[in-house]
Amino acid sequence: MRLSNDVFILGTGESKYGELWDRSLREISVEAGLNAIESSGIRTKDLDAIYMGNSLAGMISGQENIGALMSDYAGIADEDVPTLRIEASTASGAAAVHQAFLSIKSGEYDLVMVGGVEKMTELYGTEMIDISSSILDREWEAFFGGTPAAMAALSARKYMKDFGVGKDVLAAISVNDHKNASMNPIAHFSNIISLDQAMNSTPVAEPLNLMDCAPQSDGASCIILASESYMKKEGKEGVKIAGNGISQEYFALHSRDSLYSMKSTVSASRKALDRAGISLDDVSFAEVHDSFSIYGIMALEDMGFAPRGKARDIVLSEIGLNGRIPINPSGGLKAKGFPYGATGVGQFVEAYLQLMGKAGKRQIADPEYALLHSVAGTGSTSIVHIVGGE
Amino acid sequence: MRLSNDVFILGTGESKYGELWDRSLREISVEAGLNAIESSGIRTKDLDAIYMGNSLAGMISGQENIGALMSDYAGIADEDVPTLRIEASTASGAAAVHQAFLSIKSGEYDLVMVGGVEKMTELYGTEMIDISSSILDREWEAFFGGTPAAMAALSARKYMKDFGVGKDVLAAISVNDHKNASMNPIAHFSNIISLDQAMNSTPVAEPLNLMDCAPQSDGASCIILASESYMKKEGKEGVKIAGNGISQEYFALHSRDSLYSMKSTVSASRKALDRAGISLDDVSFAEVHDSFSIYGIMALEDMGFAPRGKARDIVLSEIGLNGRIPINPSGGLKAKGFPYGATGVGQFVEAYLQLMGKAGKRQIADPEYALLHSVAGTGSTSIVHIVGGE
Repeated sequence: MRLSNDVFILGTGESKYGELWDRSLREISVEAGLNAIESSGIRTKDLDAIYMGNSLAGMISGQENIGALMSDYAGIADEDVPTLRIEASTASGAAAVHQAFLSIKSGEYDLVMVGGVEKMTELYGTEMIDISSSILDREWEAFFGGTPAAMAALSARKYMKDFGVGKDVLAAISVNDHKNASMNPIAHFSNIISLDQAMNSTPVAEPLNLMDCAPQSDGASCIILASESYMKKEGKEGVKIAGNGISQEYFALHSRDSLYSMKSTVSASRKALDRAGISLDDVSFAEVHDSFSIYGIMALEDMGFAPRGKARDIVLSEIGLNGRIPINPSGGLKAKGFPYGATGVGQFVEAYLQLMGKAGKRQIADPEYALLHSVAGTGSTSIVHIVGGE
Repeated sequence: MRLSNDVFILGTGESKYGELWDRSLREISVEAGLNAIESSGIRTKDLDAIYMGNSLAGMISGQENIGALMSDYAGIADEDVPTLRIEASTASGAAAVHQAFLSIKSGEYDLVMVGGVEKMTELYGTEMIDISSSILDREWEAFFGGTPAAMAALSARKYMKDFGVGKDVLAAISVNDHKNASMNPIAHFSNIISLDQAMNSTPVAEPLNLMDCAPQSDGASCIILASESYMKKEGKEGVKIAGNGISQEYFALHSRDSLYSMKSTVSASRKALDRAGISLDDVSFAEVHDSFSIYGIMALEDMGFAPRGKARDIVLSEIGLNGRIPINPSGGLKAKGFPYGATGVGQFVEAYLQLMGKAGKRQIADPEYALLHSVAGTGSTSIVHIVGGE
């Protein structure tokens, strides 16, 4: 029966993440796509659909209809593979995976490409700050000067005050990201930073400084998803999507119950673990959405890796590659980079590489399950996937 | 077994289509949503997900993440109903319906809201022409001055030349749209136009004039979809989604085999009819994507309502409400209006009203099946649904 059909990651591909001034949106999309196809050993004409995650290409590059662009420039427009774009701001990539997952579960499709792309360095300065603020409530947050960094700073200040936490706790998230990214060849940043450097960088929105804020990166990530019946028929190996959860919360920060908890993350992670039939203790490592260091802290607490206000107990000692719960082996949003629409798909690339034992220098020993956490804006939507298992 | 579970339209709602200068994106979205909920007799907390179709809100209103906006302002953010935005330029609404359909087919969801919205009159003139050109290939069409109207004019001129067709044939599409819209209380235009008026309006992009071009409208449409098991459990009546097809073609017009055939429409309509198990003769009426009159002509020929070059044989005599094949009883894109992301959802509203016998003055006698046709840009993606039947 098709409905119990599991969905597998069959292969992955990425472009470099970084400031890719000499490369266009379509070039990096296609590079990631062709890498994923090669990694999967499939033919493009076998694809049933393409889902593209993208947040801002309309505003940055004047280009909507990214799905059609991808299909055409990958050279498969003649093969009638339908493409759509999925957008949930900074969670667009994970949302695209979610839709592709459902489309295979529906029995309509067997083999689906999911791409995520963002080209963020075409514009700079106040114009880019305004565009990135389109992921907030335009009329009630952005219009009054709210930016993503400013909103995150509110959460950080309240968190630090209520729990008597110092900047070292926030900084530890970024230090860990940079260390892991130094072993990821496609990462935006390859430099290691010290806790001292991370705590004393240029202020952005107090108490957050430059090292608390993920960069605006160009980049594309792509995965190929396949139905269980396809995997069996073709005798392929892959990594199972074991569970997923998607949850919603008020759009604007001022409507929320708490400044340092995203209810959507609490709910989405519970759903995902329930569906996978595992507990948090079974998770070998996690990729969390640390667009700002405070959001990494909040995610660890919202998902139960640490009690509320106690993330310091793990982030200073236990989140390294060899720690009790490795966080962001890819380098995370801070150091692998943060191309909005690509990030959520990129987390699946990291999960695939780690679980297949192909992560090179940053390989975690014998991982079984990965938890992947993606957030839209300041938490209006959270999407959590559990990947791995038998 | 869930996989054979059909998907039904349970209720619908719309805002007015038109130039709604005193109303915001979120207001019209919520109006359409609440109308659909009331029409369906459901409680918002029973919704499993919300899909929003939108094309240009980022570029026009600086607002991405429309899904979260809709959920919040409809007052259901506290009920943890996940929302995503689907974008396929001018086919965004139909694409959102397609994804919602798959999500119910997957067995994950039973009751899903699909909204489509666009607020297009916030900006005018060259700025708006540039934004609407983001649905084309930015680097190879829009950059060189191509606009949606200019691309359609190329198709129109070639069609008229190759088949010796006069402007009356194109104009007949718009005349029919205006006549039907005069009986649709939410339509953008309520005025009837003569063939002479339609043929001799202000030029826009020769040979297309103002009456060949759908307006830029504000508007929102919403439908509630439900699984068969939900319908049975709750004892509800609705209209079945009997078949669907989604197909892809080269992005830019210059890559296509023909200027006056959209291969994606040919393929999508065949798929949809096959899945519904019906032939074109079984279709009681069609809503076609006539963003420009020539696209209406091309759609009728691509889907087989008329042989290639022969649409004149039907559009001058057989497409009225009482004709052999009524086209666009809603008023179509030209006269009901063309809010990009709403249009594809709005077609489902018309199908529901007609098939439930609730279409008022424009009611078609005893319709059984509706064909709904939506196009992204100049045809890169076409989406066709068949609605109705037992």
